[in-house]
Amino acid sequence: MESTLSVETGNLFAQLPTDLKAEVFETLVNAVQLRIERIVSKGQASPPDFWYDQNEHEWVLILQGEAILELEDRQVTLKAGDYINLPAHVKHRVAWTMPEQETIWLAIFY
Amino acid sequence: MESTLSVETGNLFAQLPTDLKAEVFETLVNAVQLRIERIVSKGQASPPDFWYDQNEHEWVLILQGEAILELEDRQVTLKAGDYINLPAHVKHRVAWTMPEQETIWLAIFY
Repeated sequence: MESTLSVETGNLFAQLPTDLKAEVFETLVNAVQLRIERIVSKGQASPPDFWYDQNEHEWVLILQGEAILELEDRQVTLKAGDYINLPAHVKHRVAWTMPEQETIWLAIFY
Repeated sequence: MESTLSVETGNLFAQLPTDLKAEVFETLVNAVQLRIERIVSKGQASPPDFWYDQNEHEWVLILQGEAILELEDRQVTLKAGDYINLPAHVKHRVAWTMPEQETIWLAIFY
């Protein structure tokens, strides 16, 4: 437990970045065993043949928009409210995000 | 890290409980240092003079509906997208949740 933690508030839908040529990652909570990030995408995808292979587990929730995640054995379409739990070293990549609207992700690394 | 973790998917807005005489708590992820819960409320509030005083930090996000959290020094109104980080032992209670509609919370205990 960190003594520096304080009561903090915010809104996941507020202050969306206007320059979305690249995805924008913002850390919301950063603790010893946990990191919470908001990710905003608009049409981005992982480069061809790029795969995430992470040391941390990741639990991801889509709050707005739509994305397609590619796993080694299947593709998963994610819309508002959809979540997926990706254990460490489950290889995945972002195959597609909606180009017309911001896709807002909540990602919890643990 | 738990070897039993698997890729799991779901939707936060799906399969809302129909019997909401009491709030419904569902665990979505349960790991060594992390627990993710969906909480569905409909008009419930903490009993008068009841205060949560938790050993864990809690990061809470409202996905739908509206609630008022009471801290010792203030009240915080939470609507869709609003989040609040409550460090361990910050006393709080639920003063009000919307009676007409389900309020869907995502709570991360860490």
